[in-house]
Amino acid sequence: MPDPVHFYFDFSSPYSYFAAQKIDWTVKGCGRECVWKPFLLGALFKITGSQPLSTIPMKGEYCIHDWQRMAKMMDVPWTLPDPFPIPTQAAARAFYWISDDDPALAKKFALAAFGAYFGEGRDITAPETVAELAAPLGIDENALLAAVADDAIKQRLKDETAAAIDAGVFGAPFFIVDGEAFWGNDRLWMIKRWIKGQAA
Amino acid sequence: MPDPVHFYFDFSSPYSYFAAQKIDWTVKGCGRECVWKPFLLGALFKITGSQPLSTIPMKGEYCIHDWQRMAKMMDVPWTLPDPFPIPTQAAARAFYWISDDDPALAKKFALAAFGAYFGEGRDITAPETVAELAAPLGIDENALLAAVADDAIKQRLKDETAAAIDAGVFGAPFFIVDGEAFWGNDRLWMIKRWIKGQAA
Repeated sequence: MPDPVHFYFDFSSPYSYFAAQKIDWTVKGCGRECVWKPFLLGALFKITGSQPLSTIPMKGEYCIHDWQRMAKMMDVPWTLPDPFPIPTQAAARAFYWISDDDPALAKKFALAAFGAYFGEGRDITAPETVAELAAPLGIDENALLAAVADDAIKQRLKDETAAAIDAGVFGAPFFIVDGEAFWGNDRLWMIKRWIKGQAA
Repeated sequence: MPDPVHFYFDFSSPYSYFAAQKIDWTVKGCGRECVWKPFLLGALFKITGSQPLSTIPMKGEYCIHDWQRMAKMMDVPWTLPDPFPIPTQAAARAFYWISDDDPALAKKFALAAFGAYFGEGRDITAPETVAELAAPLGIDENALLAAVADDAIKQRLKDETAAAIDAGVFGAPFFIVDGEAFWGNDRLWMIKRWIKGQAA
């Protein structure tokens, strides 16, 4: 079995939301699994000096329109959330806590969190909100709340963020396949062609 | 006849080189013509405070690899030129001078200039080089050299660059269709879908 594709994302990244809808399906068609790796884009931006897209003159206004257009073309729900962007520690910690037991369930949780934030515009900063979104998936709310407050899971997210940066991740969404890096939701077609080229 | 698509580019922009190979063909399939509009990305960057991609830490190294990979996947020649980026006044002025008489010939010239720079890695800064590249297309070298040194054509390029910025262009390649803006070589599929959606 070839190595899985690594999908790096932040729960507050619109283009990550779009990529999350398709990445598993995209790479499965090429015989690969996908491992999802939420990280903190804010921690990365502190190092690279980057700014959130929506705050950059001209580019910010363009992107706000592009997200709406992309959602329409992909036929996925879209609301520009307010506040945006948000701290995503609670969602990302919850993801790793769920994932250690059940990676498939963690992806379902991630899609629920993304859907609440970018589909409905619901602020998912608070651990209580994250727990509420996990509950319909059969995840115990109190256990989740205890887990995301735990030092071990806090350190885990810091380590995952550091590992992403060490691996060369400089934005989100970001994908690494056998050491080959791809940046952006626009690169899904290229990931597919690259994997098929390796297999040929 | 609906309005043409406007294609804004700089002769020193790799993703513009890639877009130039396909844009006419892409929009013709949707019943549109395309007007090519070279401008000076450096003048724009002075206003927006942006940096050339290749000079940005991490992102720069990634892009250098991405250009090579993109060229391979698109099956177009690729050399990372040195020097890069370069001033493209001569090529852009020549383009408008040719285009005023014959827009189709100007596109052929643009593809020749792009091909020399990014296909062969030949420095196209000097007016003499630009004139040499135009000669095989039946364009008089001395007339071109006189034209690109003329104040009127210098002003023309300044005006075109100012008009691009006024139209909201903040990078290259950039496309505007009926006032709808699209940024990047990655947006060709979306331009196609957008035009088809308008026609439906």
